[in-house]
Amino acid sequence: MALVVQKFGGTSMGSIERIKNAAARTIAAHAEGNRVVVIVSAMSGETDRLLKLARDVTSVPDAREMDALAATGEQVASALMAIAIHAQGHRARSYLGHQMRILTDSAFTKARIKAIDASRVVETLAGGEIVVVAGFQGVDEAGNITTLGRGGSDTSAVAIAAALGADVCEIFTDVDGVYTTDPNICPTARKIDRISYEEMLELASLGAKVLQIRSVEMAMKYGVPVHVRSSFSSSPGTLVTHEGDLEQVVVTGIAYDKGEARVMLVGVRDQPGVVAEIFTALAAHNVSVDMIIQNVSVDATALASAGGQGPHTDVTFTVAKNDLARVRDAIAEVGRKVGAGDVRYDEDIVKVSVVGLGMRSHAGVAAKMFRILAEHGINIQAISTSEIKVSCLVATKYTELAVRALHEGFELGGDQAATSK
Amino acid sequence: MALVVQKFGGTSMGSIERIKNAAARTIAAHAEGNRVVVIVSAMSGETDRLLKLARDVTSVPDAREMDALAATGEQVASALMAIAIHAQGHRARSYLGHQMRILTDSAFTKARIKAIDASRVVETLAGGEIVVVAGFQGVDEAGNITTLGRGGSDTSAVAIAAALGADVCEIFTDVDGVYTTDPNICPTARKIDRISYEEMLELASLGAKVLQIRSVEMAMKYGVPVHVRSSFSSSPGTLVTHEGDLEQVVVTGIAYDKGEARVMLVGVRDQPGVVAEIFTALAAHNVSVDMIIQNVSVDATALASAGGQGPHTDVTFTVAKNDLARVRDAIAEVGRKVGAGDVRYDEDIVKVSVVGLGMRSHAGVAAKMFRILAEHGINIQAISTSEIKVSCLVATKYTELAVRALHEGFELGGDQAATSK
Repeated sequence: MALVVQKFGGTSMGSIERIKNAAARTIAAHAEGNRVVVIVSAMSGETDRLLKLARDVTSVPDAREMDALAATGEQVASALMAIAIHAQGHRARSYLGHQMRILTDSAFTKARIKAIDASRVVETLAGGEIVVVAGFQGVDEAGNITTLGRGGSDTSAVAIAAALGADVCEIFTDVDGVYTTDPNICPTARKIDRISYEEMLELASLGAKVLQIRSVEMAMKYGVPVHVRSSFSSSPGTLVTHEGDLEQVVVTGIAYDKGEARVMLVGVRDQPGVVAEIFTALAAHNVSVDMIIQNVSVDATALASAGGQGPHTDVTFTVAKNDLARVRDAIAEVGRKVGAGDVRYDEDIVKVSVVGLGMRSHAGVAAKMFRILAEHGINIQAISTSEIKVSCLVATKYTELAVRALHEGFELGGDQAATSK
Repeated sequence: MALVVQKFGGTSMGSIERIKNAAARTIAAHAEGNRVVVIVSAMSGETDRLLKLARDVTSVPDAREMDALAATGEQVASALMAIAIHAQGHRARSYLGHQMRILTDSAFTKARIKAIDASRVVETLAGGEIVVVAGFQGVDEAGNITTLGRGGSDTSAVAIAAALGADVCEIFTDVDGVYTTDPNICPTARKIDRISYEEMLELASLGAKVLQIRSVEMAMKYGVPVHVRSSFSSSPGTLVTHEGDLEQVVVTGIAYDKGEARVMLVGVRDQPGVVAEIFTALAAHNVSVDMIIQNVSVDATALASAGGQGPHTDVTFTVAKNDLARVRDAIAEVGRKVGAGDVRYDEDIVKVSVVGLGMRSHAGVAAKMFRILAEHGINIQAISTSEIKVSCLVATKYTELAVRALHEGFELGGDQAATSK
């Protein structure tokens, strides 16, 4: 008898009809002889409604109270899910974060799970009932309600699957799996049947919004097989699993992310320790940096001999556009400290990335990527690489062109056009 | 330093503006040097919205899950209240039923409080914070969320005031106190400054909707002074207290209740034990009965000698109109068992009552009531009395006439017309 964890997101819980539909899928899994635990998100729109109520009171609501407020969204959803399962003639029991109990630290609005007590769930499953768990929420040592941050229900689901030793964690969502790239941009995008945790992690952090990054990290750590699939179809989706289970291909997918802005500190003193000074200072201001590129300053010696001020260089990095307003002053301050002549910002950029486990053993992926972009007349502004991905910053206007050219160049397309909802 | 418990009902929490207003009143009490605990109801309309969601799933939702669902209304309200207090520069901390902890039995949707652990509240108050408690909810021994039934936040407030030994429990509502009668019917109705628990209990059970009956019973049992007052004005309202504190008047108020229907079992066997048989059977069917009148059957002997079937009588009682559809079959069955020739129903009735502690020492209140009604041509269909009230059933059309005549006859009117919102 397998143990199946299912997670239904906000869209899958978006109306009473959809909740009934989700309940029917859960019952079907139960009827096939599985023990079933369902994790639910708040009905779509509900979390935003609750946050708006708080913001109507004040622009900076107390974090502890925000969590008590926001957690009601999943509480409502879990109760309705249990009611819907009952109404279809099966037994179910809902558990909240503090009932189950999902112990977290006390970092309100972005708490991390420390431990899960699965004993009540195991007992309820043994009694033949379906267990419904409110996602996104936990409880700290002092009994305060905590939440795990946006998309936290994915993390709840994987953590519970890990704690129970579940055979699979099914993530039901409004797309039917993970694609080789965004089907809205590239009609030949193909659903990926199986993908490694590492690749999924890169795709998630590069803008593919199917799974929350933290949940993929956790699934990888505990070896939980994650099955991303559609709530509106019974076809299999994408299985996220260990690489050992996979037939290796060189490139798995193309991702893009419009969420970053490029910052360039021009004419920084080119001395040992200056770059460390810059990023230590930014970290102290809580500025989260992604790509970092120190440009080669070919004429440093020339400058030095001309101005007598020693060699200079340019330091480029990217930060989240959302953070830019908040961190501009901190960046300017750091720039002054390291003698930057100017600080330049560019928000009109997109990061296009090629991801694939096979890169580790196949040379030439980066070179091929640069060649494809060049052939299409796309200028690369910055490059960053990891073991299994290559990312290039290009002007935003090239987004669709770059994604399609790379998707075709690495031969990722299916025979038929992608179908996604 | 006094300890003040304040309770804000759904109307007082009906919008963000009103929540801010309630927070300001709480802060004012705190600024006067009191320790303050606030109990909140769900924002008006929210409980109905939640119940509708469940009813959209099924007409008979699971009771345990209904409570988990309904409790979110007060959870949202308590978080928003704490946020609003913070936003006005003061410290506050919200507690849910399971956090505080308010231990109840496991009778979902109508649980009763068994014990309250006030230690966390006492500690938080000692730290100079305002405590906000979600009303209406508790937790059972197994950690399940329970609710106390409609209007249960009044009961939460009084129970918490009792557990803390509060100096007063202020009930903020949308009227400015308890009136001698309904000001909508009788413009000369006067706000009562002080009233006894016993009188308040009679008025509440007779249709005055200012306080929930259970909360008055609890206040009486633990001697909690209850101050019913308006959220929209700073004038004092009505203090509900021990009779010893009161200047005794003969009649305190006139109440009416259109919620009952009259049932008459005609021609029941007039034997010892028959009435007991009727009401035991009705209780077994969970039929809650209010007034009971056994009519004098003057011609019982005549009937007996004529038909040879022994003496007969008529038994009249009232049940809640809301229950009538549910209990009709049970009543018919009981009627057949006791040989009733016919069962007659009358929903076109109102119960008008005169309430006052002074009745215990002043004879003639009932006689005066009957005389006043007779003078206005109002036929009395049934009478029921207790130590401190006399109730008469009359046709619904006489409601306003009867209430005004009794209010005037017992000289309850103020000099000026009543003002109420």
